[in-house]
Amino acid sequence: MKFHATILIELKEGILDPQGRAVEGVLKGLGYAVEQVRVGRVLEMELEAESEAQAKETALAIAGALANPVMEVYTLEALKPLQEVL
Amino acid sequence: MKFHATILIELKEGILDPQGRAVEGVLKGLGYAVEQVRVGRVLEMELEAESEAQAKETALAIAGALANPVMEVYTLEALKPLQEVL
Repeated sequence: MKFHATILIELKEGILDPQGRAVEGVLKGLGYAVEQVRVGRVLEMELEAESEAQAKETALAIAGALANPVMEVYTLEALKPLQEVL
Repeated sequence: MKFHATILIELKEGILDPQGRAVEGVLKGLGYAVEQVRVGRVLEMELEAESEAQAKETALAIAGALANPVMEVYTLEALKPLQEVL
C-alpha cells in the first residue's frame, strides 16, 4: 500500500535563521507587515507500507534521519493513502 | 490582529529536482522504500491583518512574491490567529 507523506524540517525556536531574516527584510521592503519569518524545508514523498500506522512510523523515522537533532525539529504534516492524493 | 501563516513553495511537477533525487538515494541506501522524493521550502511567519480574509490575501501575495512563477508552485498550508498557535 502506498502513502504520500509531507514532512516539515525547521530550525528550532531560538536558533538564528539568517535566511528567514533575509526574507523578512525583502518582504518588509515590499511593504508587508511580517515578523518572525522562518525558512525551513518541506519533503514530499511516496512510501510503501503495510498499514497507515506503519507508514507513519516509517515517515517519522525518515524525518528523524534527515533532520539535524541539535538544530532542527521535524513534523509529519500530512500522510495520506496515495489514491487520495491523485 | 496577528496571524501565523505557513507557506509551502515547491518545484512544479515535471521540473527535475536534484536535491530530491539526492535525498531519495540516501533514504534508499538506508533501506527505506521511498519514491518521488521532492524537496521544497516552508516559510513560517507572523503577519498583521484586519481580518482572516485579509490575512489570507496577504499571505498568498507574499507566497506569490517569493515563488518563481516559472518553476515553482506555492500553497498556503495553514493560517491561524496567533493566539491559537501559542
